[in-house]
Amino acid sequence: MEYIPGLAGIPVTESKISCIDGQKGILSYRGYDIQELAEFSSFEETTLLLLFGDLPTAEELARFDEQLRENRRVKYNIREIMKNLPPTTHPMHMLQVVVASLASFYPSTEYMKGGTENEGYINDVTVKIIAHMGTLVAMWEHMRNGYDPIEPRKDLTYAENFLYMVTGEEPDANWARLLDAILILHAEHTINASTFTTMVTGSTLANPCSVISSAIASLSGPLHGGANQKVIEMLEEIGAPENARAYIEERLANKKVIWGMGHREYKTKDPRATILQKLSSALLKEKSEELSTIFQTALEVEKICEELLGHKGVYPNVDFYSGILYKEMGFDVGIFTPIFAVARSAGWMAHWREQLQDNKIFRPTQVYKGSGSLCYLPVEKRGDGA
Amino acid sequence: MEYIPGLAGIPVTESKISCIDGQKGILSYRGYDIQELAEFSSFEETTLLLLFGDLPTAEELARFDEQLRENRRVKYNIREIMKNLPPTTHPMHMLQVVVASLASFYPSTEYMKGGTENEGYINDVTVKIIAHMGTLVAMWEHMRNGYDPIEPRKDLTYAENFLYMVTGEEPDANWARLLDAILILHAEHTINASTFTTMVTGSTLANPCSVISSAIASLSGPLHGGANQKVIEMLEEIGAPENARAYIEERLANKKVIWGMGHREYKTKDPRATILQKLSSALLKEKSEELSTIFQTALEVEKICEELLGHKGVYPNVDFYSGILYKEMGFDVGIFTPIFAVARSAGWMAHWREQLQDNKIFRPTQVYKGSGSLCYLPVEKRGDGA
Repeated sequence: MEYIPGLAGIPVTESKISCIDGQKGILSYRGYDIQELAEFSSFEETTLLLLFGDLPTAEELARFDEQLRENRRVKYNIREIMKNLPPTTHPMHMLQVVVASLASFYPSTEYMKGGTENEGYINDVTVKIIAHMGTLVAMWEHMRNGYDPIEPRKDLTYAENFLYMVTGEEPDANWARLLDAILILHAEHTINASTFTTMVTGSTLANPCSVISSAIASLSGPLHGGANQKVIEMLEEIGAPENARAYIEERLANKKVIWGMGHREYKTKDPRATILQKLSSALLKEKSEELSTIFQTALEVEKICEELLGHKGVYPNVDFYSGILYKEMGFDVGIFTPIFAVARSAGWMAHWREQLQDNKIFRPTQVYKGSGSLCYLPVEKRGDGA
Repeated sequence: MEYIPGLAGIPVTESKISCIDGQKGILSYRGYDIQELAEFSSFEETTLLLLFGDLPTAEELARFDEQLRENRRVKYNIREIMKNLPPTTHPMHMLQVVVASLASFYPSTEYMKGGTENEGYINDVTVKIIAHMGTLVAMWEHMRNGYDPIEPRKDLTYAENFLYMVTGEEPDANWARLLDAILILHAEHTINASTFTTMVTGSTLANPCSVISSAIASLSGPLHGGANQKVIEMLEEIGAPENARAYIEERLANKKVIWGMGHREYKTKDPRATILQKLSSALLKEKSEELSTIFQTALEVEKICEELLGHKGVYPNVDFYSGILYKEMGFDVGIFTPIFAVARSAGWMAHWREQLQDNKIFRPTQVYKGSGSLCYLPVEKRGDGA
């Protein structure tokens, strides 16, 4: 049997969580178009939808929101663990360490089993992990610079609290609304490498904190997360709007990547980019006088790429817009991928729960291409390799 | 396209590292039968063989051994991280946390790339991880009981140093020899869940410390590691040799699992069990007067199972022998799976290196079974769920 590199096109599960229609440019969560969710829902509600399959009632949403707010605080031992990491630690590496440690601070009494035996623990730990993700990323932004972290607040939404904890300032309502939409748009995207890692690790019935930590490891790889960071680096290289055309033309002529353009899954425009462009344009008009050079450069790159690449079906993707919006919110590029992880924790946990429902441990096979039977020679009888 | 649960029988890679012939009961590393390796090689040499594909020259082996010895020491910040974990932390959870933290303490200057660009870093970090694994597991045995860890020694082999660091006593040569064989036998076993996790996480070009940490998460699941712990629990339940027959017969009659018997991959006797039985029998004769009740119970269970199950091709597997040998060495059951991880780190790193050589990110697909297009309703227009 031949093997397919990267298992491209090979189904590895039956799933009810999300669906991509790459031809039409539609991404839906549990049947709901993400354009509607980004416009009308919240990250809290979308998370509930992903986890349980239905839009919640007002009461269910209020209870879940309350639980998320109550679970933002982080134990001081966890803060001590963070203090013992070098200040140069990449936020994704910090996150993997600390989320793994949650398995110790919030252990299950039983190992994970399918069925409903552990339902209480499973629900509690789901809230704990998702609530902690934002707090941990925000804490590290202060701690890696030598400052005490800012305590989370209970009176703010998930997105507001994250903005507050990172910037230390009362969150701007417009930015909070945009960040909320970005979290919704990044919460789930079918079976990519980190979600697949979640499934494989989860299939051994490992603790969910261990599972999500391994998904974070997967997302930390530059082939998976990290594209929006590349967008900013590219924009900084361009420097100003008037340099954009020459830069893009040169890269196209030399067949170099233009970061933030096109997406393997979508033949048409990335639907997440469409909604981000729409949501941000109103805000941008209002703030047009304060926009940074880098943002103005991005708008120019967008215009030129639509002109030069649009006929090939290559348009800006979600990384293009999220990258420039994060930058404009004042976030360091180092936390772009961690914010992706914060949002995606909702999808990972949904897939973990789905995996447990009808679990079989992953145990694929290989095409053996190695030596046939060899005879062991004691070291003194081997060549000297000289 | 249908999906195969657990990807059973689906090849996910071409590999030259190891091969199982389940019909004949042969496991080979790089073409060498593990029976020969367990009898004549060392864990250090077998690790080199797995990593680089050939048996090393005397000089290569001496250099690698020296590097392993030099890299046993652990930074005090890492010890502080361990101190901040609750003493109840399972050693596998500790190991996942701390190995993830190595990405911070020993970062790569570049993200991982295929080819030879990072060869120096890749070789250094391979040694660092494998050398640290044993130290970290041994340290935690003291620290989780509130004691300072014992410093590693450079004058001992890998197996000797591990025994020394766990027990605090000069290592017994016979036990060290057996432990060395056990490490060899657990170093690699084709594409199981933790090795597959290594490949999937590694395929995003994540840092190798992050990758091995995620493999540890996978191995921590009770469906993967943990079987040898179950063997001991079963033997303790039996209590004494004279209770063994009734216990086994009762479990067989009620179709309950007998832990440590049979292996999915082998139709005949697990070759690792065969060699462990052979290597231990000489030692056991010598020590027969000191053998614990539990060990004598195990020997009785082995005899009865061969009698009752042997004709079905069900024999004791490697977990049966390694479990009782660990117990006899004085190890707590909590570190059985961590010792598996220590040994397997060699195989994981070999597969990680192989993955990088011709890498494609894992991006499988799914069979979507969820809702079709649904319309978003604002929360106030939904039912109240009553």
